[in-house]
Amino acid sequence: MATTRFDILGIGNAIVDVVARAEDGFLSRHDMPKGTMALIDAAAAEHLYAAMPPGQESSGGSAANTCAVAAALGARVAYLGKVADDQLGAVFAHDMRATGVHFPSAPLAGGAPTARCLILVTPDGQRTMNTFLGACVSFGEADVDAGLVADAAVTYLEGYLFDPPAAQAAFRRAAAAAHAAGRQVALSLSDPFCVNRHRPAFRDLVAGHVDILFANEAEITSLYETNTFEAAADQARRDVALAALTRSEAGSIILRGDSTVTVAAERADVVDTTGAGDAYAAGFLAGLTSGRDLATCGRIASIAAAEVIGHYGARPMADLRARAAGV
Amino acid sequence: MATTRFDILGIGNAIVDVVARAEDGFLSRHDMPKGTMALIDAAAAEHLYAAMPPGQESSGGSAANTCAVAAALGARVAYLGKVADDQLGAVFAHDMRATGVHFPSAPLAGGAPTARCLILVTPDGQRTMNTFLGACVSFGEADVDAGLVADAAVTYLEGYLFDPPAAQAAFRRAAAAAHAAGRQVALSLSDPFCVNRHRPAFRDLVAGHVDILFANEAEITSLYETNTFEAAADQARRDVALAALTRSEAGSIILRGDSTVTVAAERADVVDTTGAGDAYAAGFLAGLTSGRDLATCGRIASIAAAEVIGHYGARPMADLRARAAGV
Repeated sequence: MATTRFDILGIGNAIVDVVARAEDGFLSRHDMPKGTMALIDAAAAEHLYAAMPPGQESSGGSAANTCAVAAALGARVAYLGKVADDQLGAVFAHDMRATGVHFPSAPLAGGAPTARCLILVTPDGQRTMNTFLGACVSFGEADVDAGLVADAAVTYLEGYLFDPPAAQAAFRRAAAAAHAAGRQVALSLSDPFCVNRHRPAFRDLVAGHVDILFANEAEITSLYETNTFEAAADQARRDVALAALTRSEAGSIILRGDSTVTVAAERADVVDTTGAGDAYAAGFLAGLTSGRDLATCGRIASIAAAEVIGHYGARPMADLRARAAGV
Repeated sequence: MATTRFDILGIGNAIVDVVARAEDGFLSRHDMPKGTMALIDAAAAEHLYAAMPPGQESSGGSAANTCAVAAALGARVAYLGKVADDQLGAVFAHDMRATGVHFPSAPLAGGAPTARCLILVTPDGQRTMNTFLGACVSFGEADVDAGLVADAAVTYLEGYLFDPPAAQAAFRRAAAAAHAAGRQVALSLSDPFCVNRHRPAFRDLVAGHVDILFANEAEITSLYETNTFEAAADQARRDVALAALTRSEAGSIILRGDSTVTVAAERADVVDTTGAGDAYAAGFLAGLTSGRDLATCGRIASIAAAEVIGHYGARPMADLRARAAGV
């Protein structure tokens, strides 16, 4: 394989997070199933924001988080996603570029505002998310630069991108361009409810177009509609060349062909689990694209995830490169 | 004294903070004296932001932080300050109202954007701040509602408000209205450089119009141009009825007439000292306006400050009321 300009190209919904602490009662009063992501429209977002406690804003978006963490670990990273030409869009673009991520997407002018995700973090550290997609709904096939895809060793797609109507086509175009150039396609399942909304499309994509699959226990059992993690893992092993399946504090397993690598979770004081899966994928792909073995990829993934859940917000606040240096 | 609708009315620069981690080398490359606040214009703000690492946004502003913390402690609080009619202004207003602070100021339409403060937090937890005042420069005398001032037991003014040109007049109007209604005026000196920029005006205000003074060691020695904390404290004791002087991890002293109360600092793992002084003033005033003795006011102040320096951002992320409940 010829050398590429980038190790990872992420494609996803470009979102600014608004993180607030809330008691469990707030979730039940607003009918939010804890730990999941719901899509809301502009009016619902305004209504919920008005009811929410004071927040902290930081750049988010699943694949964007992965890109930022991977870049912080030293990977060469690019990202495609749609923000609006507004203050929050400028914040998002700044944060990507400041981490060293190449972010060429032009902001949307005169349309919906930059997407935001209203995140309630309960005392147990779990995050419950409500996403207003805003400018992201305008992201489509035309936004995928096939040349950029060909120039990245791995194109990483977030499952959430199945939600905005035009993005599925972008998704398929990116996967086709990657394989045409002899590159790999990675997918994160993102959320069990998202999998549920788009199961046939996900199943088709995973079986036919994905080389590297990331999922947690709830997502992988939802994808294959199985009762046990083991049964779902067996199916994943048959469908993709490489799968990394995470189980929170029980660590993760990495499957390639007949082999299985078991990785322990890094110890962490859980403050806010937002972005844990994104950071795991980042560490894994940063390791993989720099030629590390699977056990080491899993270790770096766990270190990155542990850093991110130790504070509010999904982007690293510590020197991740230093933390992963000894691995 | 008749019962008032509010315990505290804060008046200050309404600012959104952008907090980023930076090494000491970043400060020296950009000629920033560590631990201080510098005023910058729009162009310098854009330039610095482009050079800054990824950030987290949260509502800030010295007196606004004090108001949010005091409200979180259960005080009845109002705030006056000028944001713009933009996304960051909406974030600021949301965060004030979500803490329960009455915030009647109308946003500025068609002028400068909402003020922001670019904050670099070094590994030692110290914060170095660069403020673009934006919409705050339009805050003036007309923005001070004398009725609201008369309806608050304490009107709390931040020293930073001496910087925008029209605000000094607002400051004096507020102090006069408070005293005319038989209320008290509190002042925070904010920053030694700010004191230096406006020393004669500060000295005049403190000696003639301030009942309760908040300052740290650098600020109080700058105000009185003395070499020792003890000499400055003696002068403060003569100038104001009540002074609370903080000395970081060495705790604080509270001076009233001939009496001195010494308060130990609460133990804290220092992550980011942004807002420590603001939170101290909040705890102190929340205690004072609910009739607690000075030692207890100092304890609540120290608990609030310890919470705020334990995480990034100047607003509380824990249940402060619960933390102060045992005091």
